Amino acid sequence: MASGCKIGPSILNSDLASLGAECLRMLDSGADYLHLDVMDGTVSSLKAETVSLAHLCILCRKSTMASLNYNWLDEWLYHKGGISKESLLPLPALWQTLSLLRHFVPNITFGHPVVESLRKQLGQDPFFDMHMMVSRPEQWVKPMAVAGANQYTFHLEATENPGALIKDIRENGMKVGLAIKPGTTVEYLAPWANQIDMALVMTVEPGFGGQKFMEDMMPKVKEVFGSGVHWLRTQFPSLDIEVDGGVGPDTIHKCAEAGANMIVSGSAIMRSEDPRSVINLLRNVCSEAAQKRSLDR
Amino acid sequence: MASGCKIGPSILNSDLASLGAECLRMLDSGADYLHLDVMDGTVSSLKAETVSLAHLCILCRKSTMASLNYNWLDEWLYHKGGISKESLLPLPALWQTLSLLRHFVPNITFGHPVVESLRKQLGQDPFFDMHMMVSRPEQWVKPMAVAGANQYTFHLEATENPGALIKDIRENGMKVGLAIKPGTTVEYLAPWANQIDMALVMTVEPGFGGQKFMEDMMPKVKEVFGSGVHWLRTQFPSLDIEVDGGVGPDTIHKCAEAGANMIVSGSAIMRSEDPRSVINLLRNVCSEAAQKRSLDR
Repeated sequence: MASGCKIGPSILNSDLASLGAECLRMLDSGADYLHLDVMDGTVSSLKAETVSLAHLCILCRKSTMASLNYNWLDEWLYHKGGISKESLLPLPALWQTLSLLRHFVPNITFGHPVVESLRKQLGQDPFFDMHMMVSRPEQWVKPMAVAGANQYTFHLEATENPGALIKDIRENGMKVGLAIKPGTTVEYLAPWANQIDMALVMTVEPGFGGQKFMEDMMPKVKEVFGSGVHWLRTQFPSLDIEVDGGVGPDTIHKCAEAGANMIVSGSAIMRSEDPRSVINLLRNVCSEAAQKRSLDR
Repeated sequence: MASGCKIGPSILNSDLASLGAECLRMLDSGADYLHLDVMDGTVSSLKAETVSLAHLCILCRKSTMASLNYNWLDEWLYHKGGISKESLLPLPALWQTLSLLRHFVPNITFGHPVVESLRKQLGQDPFFDMHMMVSRPEQWVKPMAVAGANQYTFHLEATENPGALIKDIRENGMKVGLAIKPGTTVEYLAPWANQIDMALVMTVEPGFGGQKFMEDMMPKVKEVFGSGVHWLRTQFPSLDIEVDGGVGPDTIHKCAEAGANMIVSGSAIMRSEDPRSVINLLRNVCSEAAQKRSLDR
């Protein structure tokens, strides 16, 4: 089994001008770890530009398809731009370029200099789970390790080579988290599950705090008995599974029942007058569900 | 003449976990405004990818050259990738794509959510000069205005359409700053000087605090009597001219003599035990030079 239920407040909706104090407040309220959202901003007119690029692809059409799996991108181009898959140029150089267009979120939060300041202020003990919502997660591994991050959670959608990135994170002395956006199916994550410490199933579209929980993400986590579908929790009983987005007292039951054991909660904790109670409630619900699951076996 | 000498501490090298407190400390020490560095990170292997893209351009070579002025980019591709200008495809779509590759700095600092928190904590009075070291400055105008920014200082190198951006900034109720990196000559800035409130002449490569002042940038600001070269200060006497990078007690004289009147200083102020004295010293040197200049006329 995964190692217990842990609650990690997300400080995205806190007073970012006093981030150290906010983090301390969370730790004093019983937070098990801190979930820190790193965002590098997005290309707001991505659609138009990608379509332009797609037209460029058509211009220099090639007959061979690259062996790399870019199906999701093809699908996306097709739906957004009406560009047929066959007309796309799958040159590695082009995909490399397109990968740069895949910025991640319409927001810039903070980067490793802030993490470094937080580590200085909070000391060595608090566990920092860095949620890297950035376009090229490869480039921040070393800076984040040096800044004092404990876990580097990157998005499967943001890299062409998860294996190399996992290796690099480990070599830099951090735990490995692998995240998927709502639009990414869990089957893409599964091949990496044995190499990572934690899977993060996003329950909102990444970018901003305060969004509504997407319950339909739970089948990614859930054991569906009798259906032949046994997702992350069943297939990887010792894997830490994190949920992030719209999780609070109203939605924790769904997450806990599905088998998540690392619970990110932002507004529900940060904006509560009694964050300690909220954290305790979330942890209790999660622990009870885990216990029940273990008895059911 | 520009409206007096102002000192704007840059908080890049401060305790970012207590940014509000650090800003307050600066304001209490006599800072005239705050210079806030927004960075969205860079593409570390830009060279290789741009070269790949350049090869792609050759692949779909076109005979017509776009009317837009991308000379600097052509030069860059030529030097970095050995790609001749003539072999490049100047399709707007392609340039648009390339523009996305021009990320700005190898660092993520913070974005508008932090600015919003700062404004809440510091109240309406302090003047926030946002130094936008980001790849697409267009996308943050409204969010920054809403967050409480007073001046939006963008980089000439980061946009294809400075005129539209200037208009947008004004329509969003902010002052306009226009910045140039060390590698950009001041002639590119001059055509916009009558439309902006402030020109920022970078005196280090943007990205990190604590770098060494580049004295050879001063001719961009300076009046060079008898040489036929009269740069910003002479041509635009009422323009605010800001310098940023490596400016402190050791280097302020050069900036002041050249005619800069908005002085950004990071480490020299932030890491001083007596920031008030440093701020006063910087302001005095700057004011004396301005007075001397005005007497010389």
